[in-house]
Amino acid sequence: MKIALDVLGGDFAPMANIEGAITYLTEYGNTASDLILVGDEKVINSKLETLSFNSSKISIEHTTELVEMHEKPARIFKEKPNSSLVKSIQLVKERKVDAAVSSGNTGALLATSLFLIGKIPGIIRPAFAPFIPTNKGGFILCDAGANANSKPQHLLQFALMAEAYIEHLEKKINPRIGLLNIGVEKNKGNELSQSTYPLLEKHIDNFIGNIESRYLFEGKVDVVICDGFTGNIVLKLIEGIISHLFEWIENLYTTHENGTNLSSEFLSILKEIQNNLDHEEYGATPLLGINGVIMKSHGASSSRGIHNSLIATQKSIEENLTNDIAKRLTIQADIIDSKQNETNPV
Amino acid sequence: MKIALDVLGGDFAPMANIEGAITYLTEYGNTASDLILVGDEKVINSKLETLSFNSSKISIEHTTELVEMHEKPARIFKEKPNSSLVKSIQLVKERKVDAAVSSGNTGALLATSLFLIGKIPGIIRPAFAPFIPTNKGGFILCDAGANANSKPQHLLQFALMAEAYIEHLEKKINPRIGLLNIGVEKNKGNELSQSTYPLLEKHIDNFIGNIESRYLFEGKVDVVICDGFTGNIVLKLIEGIISHLFEWIENLYTTHENGTNLSSEFLSILKEIQNNLDHEEYGATPLLGINGVIMKSHGASSSRGIHNSLIATQKSIEENLTNDIAKRLTIQADIIDSKQNETNPV
Repeated sequence: MKIALDVLGGDFAPMANIEGAITYLTEYGNTASDLILVGDEKVINSKLETLSFNSSKISIEHTTELVEMHEKPARIFKEKPNSSLVKSIQLVKERKVDAAVSSGNTGALLATSLFLIGKIPGIIRPAFAPFIPTNKGGFILCDAGANANSKPQHLLQFALMAEAYIEHLEKKINPRIGLLNIGVEKNKGNELSQSTYPLLEKHIDNFIGNIESRYLFEGKVDVVICDGFTGNIVLKLIEGIISHLFEWIENLYTTHENGTNLSSEFLSILKEIQNNLDHEEYGATPLLGINGVIMKSHGASSSRGIHNSLIATQKSIEENLTNDIAKRLTIQADIIDSKQNETNPV
Repeated sequence: MKIALDVLGGDFAPMANIEGAITYLTEYGNTASDLILVGDEKVINSKLETLSFNSSKISIEHTTELVEMHEKPARIFKEKPNSSLVKSIQLVKERKVDAAVSSGNTGALLATSLFLIGKIPGIIRPAFAPFIPTNKGGFILCDAGANANSKPQHLLQFALMAEAYIEHLEKKINPRIGLLNIGVEKNKGNELSQSTYPLLEKHIDNFIGNIESRYLFEGKVDVVICDGFTGNIVLKLIEGIISHLFEWIENLYTTHENGTNLSSEFLSILKEIQNNLDHEEYGATPLLGINGVIMKSHGASSSRGIHNSLIATQKSIEENLTNDIAKRLTIQADIIDSKQNETNPV
């Protein structure tokens, strides 16, 4: 297996990305995938010289163009064809690698993947489906922001794709799928959720109904389905509240603090929770619905995050997630039919 | 001044409601508003007998019908005309009181208020705008669930009403208004937020642009505007995460705990934060846009919550919030005009 790693994407690129690649190779030894490091050859080589690793597993695709976070995603492919982000996806298109991983701009990754690789036949919209860790197991949030505007038919497909993904990720048979809503009754919510409910009820085996955001953390659901606008608000709100609360606790702690034992005890509890909540623990997330394995790792990935992202990528290739989604769509042929109606509106 | 208190609404009714009323009267003495306790006369009297208070300030409106949380809000007015919730609002309509407070079903409170009292002339949709406390001052979230579906024009009016409300509540001049969105750039978001941005930019003096949910807690915004579906998801998510995290910390603490000093120190920090985050500290929130003062207190209000809700209600009456919103609409006449276009679509 072969993976392209975008060395220039992310807040701590390129050093964290290169270090993460090497610790991955070291840990996996002979069973590691071959890596193509996509980025500035000079920088990569000078970093590699300081490290020891199995050089037969690494090659470099030289490129220097950078994609910035503020750039318009849809234009990247045309304006930055030699960026590490575009080149990594190009390698998947040309079948030179089995997957690409990037910590770069999510929108650019998505738009470029759509342009170069396209969607799994039958899929209307791709989706972004990160795993949200909690004290009770966590859940997949889908869509967490690939689409700003969504229709009921899209949400149904998100459910189908996320179901396949969590079955691969967690080896969970028949995961529980819930629709994010503002009440539990079937008729609750906005026009979108009201129209989506009966579709999920009809097509999704283990649909458990609506779930309110207040109860997301109680371990009652494995996949939470919503439109990408709401999902992105939820994703970022969780990060925001948690960091706000921890900062608050630490500030108060500094005020109250009166002994070393207390310090270590208190901080070890906070640390334990932070480790569990850490996005880096779970590595990268596939862009569901793209006809190839394109993995997005967190923009703030350290070398540990990149290391775990490469493990997650290897797993996605091995588990053949893309094919499995395609197969599920064939079984649920009526979902594809509706799509064809939609893309050719009268 | 006179306030009707729905004694039968809320998780801890009627006892918490009656106790809250009495502590309010005791604290405010001669400056307290007169209270009409709306509920079961027998129950109220038997409770009042155990308490000491200024009886000239209290009267009872007898009624026994209960509104349950699961009932269809729109039907309450017809199906439960003798409920304490409907009767409290009826008293406002008949001008027998200056305001009503209820911890009952928010939807029922809203639908009944709309039916009996109606909206401030020019307002298209009322809004629910609770105050969200943070370590950096907190913010008003509007709309937090009065409307499942919203249009750009509605969001503009929400901004206008919430601005008036926070000026009254916090005596804050020119509060900073932000639009909840999934990116900061003007063109980001879904169709609703994209269309709302230019309206806010044009009509709202201190519009600071889009704000991402990740940054809601950093004290950069006083009013956060969004549609009621998203707002309700945000409101309940904040409650859900905070209680999840505290439970988690307490569980770990129980595991780690090894001394009494640690216990009191640790728990005092958590308690300090919980007190700050406590909805009861802030009492009730007015239903903005209703042509009268109808205050919603949290469903889980204890006597302290009711006590603080009565204080907030007295303030809303004194500050003449309803009239102020109406006046602002007169100044911004173009906002009303657009409304008339909308209700009479071609």
